[in-house]
Amino acid sequence: MQKKIFPFSAKKVSYYFDADFSLLSKLVDKHQAVLITDENVFAAHTKKFNGWKTIRISAGENTKKQATVDEIISQLIVLQADRKSVIIGVGGGVVTDIAGFVASIYMRGVKFGFVPTSVLAMVDASIGGKNGIDVGVYKNMVGTIRQPEFLVYDVSFLKTLPEGEWINGFAEIIKHASIKDEKLFAELEKNKLAHYQKNAEAMSKLIRTNAAIKSEIVRKDEFEQGERKLLNFGHTVGHAIENVYGLSHGKAISIGMVAACILSEQFTNFKQTARVIGLLTKYGLPTLAEFNAKKAFEVLKMDKKKNQHSLNYVLLNRIGEGVVKAIPMDQLEKLIHSIVRAR
Amino acid sequence: MQKKIFPFSAKKVSYYFDADFSLLSKLVDKHQAVLITDENVFAAHTKKFNGWKTIRISAGENTKKQATVDEIISQLIVLQADRKSVIIGVGGGVVTDIAGFVASIYMRGVKFGFVPTSVLAMVDASIGGKNGIDVGVYKNMVGTIRQPEFLVYDVSFLKTLPEGEWINGFAEIIKHASIKDEKLFAELEKNKLAHYQKNAEAMSKLIRTNAAIKSEIVRKDEFEQGERKLLNFGHTVGHAIENVYGLSHGKAISIGMVAACILSEQFTNFKQTARVIGLLTKYGLPTLAEFNAKKAFEVLKMDKKKNQHSLNYVLLNRIGEGVVKAIPMDQLEKLIHSIVRAR
Repeated sequence: MQKKIFPFSAKKVSYYFDADFSLLSKLVDKHQAVLITDENVFAAHTKKFNGWKTIRISAGENTKKQATVDEIISQLIVLQADRKSVIIGVGGGVVTDIAGFVASIYMRGVKFGFVPTSVLAMVDASIGGKNGIDVGVYKNMVGTIRQPEFLVYDVSFLKTLPEGEWINGFAEIIKHASIKDEKLFAELEKNKLAHYQKNAEAMSKLIRTNAAIKSEIVRKDEFEQGERKLLNFGHTVGHAIENVYGLSHGKAISIGMVAACILSEQFTNFKQTARVIGLLTKYGLPTLAEFNAKKAFEVLKMDKKKNQHSLNYVLLNRIGEGVVKAIPMDQLEKLIHSIVRAR
Repeated sequence: MQKKIFPFSAKKVSYYFDADFSLLSKLVDKHQAVLITDENVFAAHTKKFNGWKTIRISAGENTKKQATVDEIISQLIVLQADRKSVIIGVGGGVVTDIAGFVASIYMRGVKFGFVPTSVLAMVDASIGGKNGIDVGVYKNMVGTIRQPEFLVYDVSFLKTLPEGEWINGFAEIIKHASIKDEKLFAELEKNKLAHYQKNAEAMSKLIRTNAAIKSEIVRKDEFEQGERKLLNFGHTVGHAIENVYGLSHGKAISIGMVAACILSEQFTNFKQTARVIGLLTKYGLPTLAEFNAKKAFEVLKMDKKKNQHSLNYVLLNRIGEGVVKAIPMDQLEKLIHSIVRAR
């Protein structure tokens, strides 16, 4: 086990890498803890939850909505959870997003921690304090920014992770490499998914590297005034098509990253689109999509990164160096139409 | 107009006393503002809302629930409100509580301000950053603590305030006097409600005094570790009976203050219960209630101030000096039963 502390503005967050789930009972009083997990994680790891008060929600992105929050709050009341209670999200990004949001609003905020169980949650979703739910097709329209007390990394959860979820997580890993770490990008090019699936040590190291990339970016800019915006690479078009087309988050942002690379060619003279497409393809991610440009643009207009007339778009100067540029909405609409037509 | 700034931990909040509603257009860009008000305030002051994007909700405590939050968020999406939008709650405590909560979670938080239109909202609800909604009979079970940018006090709104709402607000004014300001308590004893209703200057001064009492307490203890707990005087039993019996907030906490005075006799040797009852009665507030002690205690067990086995209860050492004591739940149950039986 390896403990690392990242100091965010309001709180120091403890990361326990290479840990075991059982560490939880040393971090919190079992009587004060309420675990939130989904049916899939619970079914695959039932024994781990023995003796813990646990609220189970349905699995899947469609669960990430207000009705689920209402249901969890009802159950917390029944469990007589109080201000001293600690909520622990055990699951993928949907579970950690919902658990963090519930903990931020229940009784005006209680403490919380996460045990991320998917690659995506380990390297991305559980880090940085952003939480929330979708409203219809609009992703993360409602939520807060609030840091957990701790993150417990137990890679044994990955043994039961479906292939599609591995791929999903690698989309964010490739994103991190693209905006911040050319060396990591080159490492990923050298290996392939099966290498990390078979080699627990390589995977642990990859998780630590990626958790550090994201944590450092967030630490410098917790409330997304600048640097943190880079993490939205691929997410603007990605979010616009994710819920409209029922794509997995990884697939959606993979397509979004390609769109951002093509935009970059125009705005930053970026010349490595083919290399990004190559890496995404190598890890089983899609880079083309038949999507309705008009419909996607309607959703995109509600993007949280939008001002009245322009949208802050994350582009690449080169692999390993992301940059944010404000792009006028009318210009963006034209570009998106042309990208879709071109493919 | 008199501007005063109270510096809270995360934000300096500007209070504009003796101001006019029209000041709003100097504080925010009309295009970026979305006003939230209730049907009563809108009907009584329709002209004021001319040219402002306005979301109207039903009036009354029953509106303070998740369904209303959902409805407001849908409307914000239709209005294309974005991260630069400023939400302004124009109304009583229900409106400011909901508007503050929505602003804290919409797109993970946008800026907001208040124009309190009731006595209660002016002296209490709009101050201090606590917001939220009820969940069934449980008051403020969900919410956040987040400060507004500004408060605009326009006492012309009070001209259309129903008598019952005046009385409601004076319950909180008497609370402030009881826990913090014996001089104010004596002033209130000398006057009566009609004096403040007829005399705009006296009322303005009373509002400033009370806004300052609450703001100072909150400033010292924004996240309710100590001092701020005093503001819960009368609210423990008050909240327990408010929604169960459909009482107004003022009436409920008036009964709660009397209960707290009687408890104080036992725990702090308090001897001025009769004086508190006298003042509450003078301002039209009830001090007795036929309530079901068992049912009230069930709700009280879920109070946010509760730990596992005891409840932090606000008592009085003397008029003008509140104090917090942890009272064991079993002892509290007995006392509540005995108070109810005694009356």
